[in-house]
Amino acid sequence: MDVPLTPLEFARRARRIYPKREAVVDGALRLNYAQFLDRCDRWSAALQELGVAHGDRVVVISPNTHSMLEQFYAVPQLGAIVVPLNYRLTGADFKYMIEHCTPTVVCAHADYIDTLEALRPELSGVRHFVALTGGAPGWLDYEATLAAHPPQFRRPEIAEDDVLSINYTSGTTSRPKGVMITHRNAWANTVGSLMHNPMQVGERYLWTLPMFHANGWTFTWTVTAAGGTHVCIAKVDAAAVYAQVNRESVTMLCAAPTVLIGIANGPEEGRRTLRRGVRVITAGAPPAAATIKRVEGELGWVVTQMYGLTETAPMILVCEMRPEDAALSADERAAHKARQGVELISSGELKVVDEHDNEVPADGATLGEIVVRGNVVMKGYYKDPQASATALRGGWFHTGDAAVVHPDGYVEIRDRFKDVIISGGENISSIELEGVLLAHPAVMEAAVVGMAHEKWGETPVAHVVLRAGAQASEEQLRLHCRERLAGFKVPSAVHFVNELPKTATGKIQKYVLRKQQSAIHRQ
Amino acid sequence: MDVPLTPLEFARRARRIYPKREAVVDGALRLNYAQFLDRCDRWSAALQELGVAHGDRVVVISPNTHSMLEQFYAVPQLGAIVVPLNYRLTGADFKYMIEHCTPTVVCAHADYIDTLEALRPELSGVRHFVALTGGAPGWLDYEATLAAHPPQFRRPEIAEDDVLSINYTSGTTSRPKGVMITHRNAWANTVGSLMHNPMQVGERYLWTLPMFHANGWTFTWTVTAAGGTHVCIAKVDAAAVYAQVNRESVTMLCAAPTVLIGIANGPEEGRRTLRRGVRVITAGAPPAAATIKRVEGELGWVVTQMYGLTETAPMILVCEMRPEDAALSADERAAHKARQGVELISSGELKVVDEHDNEVPADGATLGEIVVRGNVVMKGYYKDPQASATALRGGWFHTGDAAVVHPDGYVEIRDRFKDVIISGGENISSIELEGVLLAHPAVMEAAVVGMAHEKWGETPVAHVVLRAGAQASEEQLRLHCRERLAGFKVPSAVHFVNELPKTATGKIQKYVLRKQQSAIHRQ
Repeated sequence: MDVPLTPLEFARRARRIYPKREAVVDGALRLNYAQFLDRCDRWSAALQELGVAHGDRVVVISPNTHSMLEQFYAVPQLGAIVVPLNYRLTGADFKYMIEHCTPTVVCAHADYIDTLEALRPELSGVRHFVALTGGAPGWLDYEATLAAHPPQFRRPEIAEDDVLSINYTSGTTSRPKGVMITHRNAWANTVGSLMHNPMQVGERYLWTLPMFHANGWTFTWTVTAAGGTHVCIAKVDAAAVYAQVNRESVTMLCAAPTVLIGIANGPEEGRRTLRRGVRVITAGAPPAAATIKRVEGELGWVVTQMYGLTETAPMILVCEMRPEDAALSADERAAHKARQGVELISSGELKVVDEHDNEVPADGATLGEIVVRGNVVMKGYYKDPQASATALRGGWFHTGDAAVVHPDGYVEIRDRFKDVIISGGENISSIELEGVLLAHPAVMEAAVVGMAHEKWGETPVAHVVLRAGAQASEEQLRLHCRERLAGFKVPSAVHFVNELPKTATGKIQKYVLRKQQSAIHRQ
Repeated sequence: MDVPLTPLEFARRARRIYPKREAVVDGALRLNYAQFLDRCDRWSAALQELGVAHGDRVVVISPNTHSMLEQFYAVPQLGAIVVPLNYRLTGADFKYMIEHCTPTVVCAHADYIDTLEALRPELSGVRHFVALTGGAPGWLDYEATLAAHPPQFRRPEIAEDDVLSINYTSGTTSRPKGVMITHRNAWANTVGSLMHNPMQVGERYLWTLPMFHANGWTFTWTVTAAGGTHVCIAKVDAAAVYAQVNRESVTMLCAAPTVLIGIANGPEEGRRTLRRGVRVITAGAPPAAATIKRVEGELGWVVTQMYGLTETAPMILVCEMRPEDAALSADERAAHKARQGVELISSGELKVVDEHDNEVPADGATLGEIVVRGNVVMKGYYKDPQASATALRGGWFHTGDAAVVHPDGYVEIRDRFKDVIISGGENISSIELEGVLLAHPAVMEAAVVGMAHEKWGETPVAHVVLRAGAQASEEQLRLHCRERLAGFKVPSAVHFVNELPKTATGKIQKYVLRKQQSAIHRQ
């Protein structure tokens, strides 16, 4: 006697079981689950009246606020599709994605209204613009519209294979693609997260990760499933994070490695009084062992690495600790945790394959591509059957990530295939090299990319941000690498920079570094 | 890109990720996951050669051994249906169920071969009898047959709505009914268990609960999903449990309340040296607060109560602890834990309804019937469309359990509806009355049933087993009840007995007590 698998089920349960528990903290606003879900229902009623029907798209552009979170419930419970855009993109990006997904309604935070207002004449297909905060002429006021509607609406039949969200990929190499995540995809991912990162009732989750990023790695629903509290934060810098963690007794957060580096290197007096034991899930890019060691050693937090992609809803690997790992030293533990790990219980099947689709040997050395199938794999790319067919060829999603399998079965990512540096016929993993650089006490951030080389084809070049007050010369860092790596892996040059170019989700934009290098080279 | 939800997926993952971890301990035999699943594959190959095809039934009658556990993998991965029978039933029961489900193959442990051999002339439809241990002329030898087959077989397509097992109900009031559990039902229940009772890699689970009982409350697959070890035990008495818990460093077990009472009252010297911190899941009947307090206080174990039925695969409620519960005293904590709790995250929707299908108020007093819908609810009763339609009427499974809902949303079972005693128009919960009796220091077990009464319609009668060496008179126990309960609830008689009649799963057979009472009354 099946009912559809959908994260909306977690909201139904939370309303029933946890009506008076705190659901959301956002500045001075505190909502319990009854209040929060009542607001979602009112907004569903308003959207329905605005003409949003089953299958329609609703775009939302907002940082992590309570009204952003509400879209992840109010829109899907109409059978409509929530499309959270990366708010750090440009107006031209917004225009491309809005024209691509043709939403009925666009909702935006005050900070993005001007940009959208400028685009508005060209976006004639959008029937309503909604100001989640702030406002402008011709924009509906979110709070007033919500308040004007009773919390009743016609609940449509929702099938588990209906699309719940469209999440645009970051599009570093091509136009962004719209990943279609179904209700079943999101449900399976939430359940997988909870089996591997058990959450208790009363858990307090800090929203350091943008919600637009693969639906906040599904925590938009996971926190609700567990009866936890969504704690918003206006600005993700180390001092603000420390303050909010202490003030709100935060127990858990998610952060990409570059964000973690920032948090780990916050003001020392803040670190001393910081709440210990916070569980951190990191994903989005491979963290260096040095970063993990620093977060665990300096902050007293506990890091779990997971791996996934927008196309897999997102989590598909978890670096699970085993009883025998209790005996590891801090260094060994960090090195262990820097691997991406093993399949989640619910995620489906994951293999690392060579170009003939054969699994690579579990030797910790042979590079292959990660491919996945299962219930977390997207339905496809929106309006792009060809890209969908290519990515999902043979019934497996091809991630484009180059990885090795260790003898103990743990998968470790060595690079995006396109970022592997091939020097004199040898593969060099930029991630391995970055890990070595980050182990140097003066190095805060590092990114390695290949540069064309007459003799070797390519040669690795490092871009390094030093820790505040620390010093190191190019020769010192090359020596540091030479002592730890085969000679052909030592960077041929080290560029010292003040910051690295990053995507909104904290991923380093290596294509920008490559462009800068070419420019330097041409000069 | 969906793949079927099936617990077979946990075996695939365990083989890939945990090949060398210990899967099963059974006496002197120790199998890692590679060995264990290799054996399952060999047995699948043998069964396939014996003619077992998709949809066929394979009956198994065995205590908790490695070969019993193997049936829960080897049979379903053929698309066939495993039918584990309650081995404590009689030959006539076996005959009824075998004739009802018409299996291709019957597998039995040595202890049941004589009984089945006597029935064999009447079971002409069964093509093969297999001796899991021991043997008899005309019976296939399990180990020899398994060893003679390579671990390859044709893997059929399995749909998630295919039937995985048929589990016969205990049939205290009617002929046993065959509950059809699908692959999706079992998968959803396993996932639910793991979210609420997180298990680590290396967990060591003791098989005190019979595997035939709703597939061992799904732990036949849950332990494998978590990469834990299935630890078998030949005999479930307190001394043997203590010894095995210590010898095998057991971390978790399941037990019905009556079994828990036995374990909690084991030899004192054994309790002193017993491993602490073992997590216990109890279900199958409501445990008294006194039992929970004793297990937690005397053994230092941690009890979680869950609730379910064979028809719900089985778990649908969990008595989840909340942060504020940390402040409870031992007595309050035990009383809290004696309630059945709240919906599991993945189980589906649960309501307590009156005769008009309206939810009862959450006042901790109004009795209603528990009804459930969702992905753990069975496909129906095998070959019994009428009973299926009745049980699943209106799209909800009707449990027949009478419960109240507390103001905090926690559900507490008061009785099977048929066991509610109605005295002078007032409902008396036999479970409430038993809870009060069990709080008396001399009482080890108690069962209360109604007896016909000229004036009141019915009146409660208690059947009590005293603790070894303890003494109490009928008048003392009635006084103990009078001090704690409304006058009409005080038992009109107390019968002292040496043991209570129980089903194989530890449920007290109240219909037997009623028969005995009638017999006494007629004398």
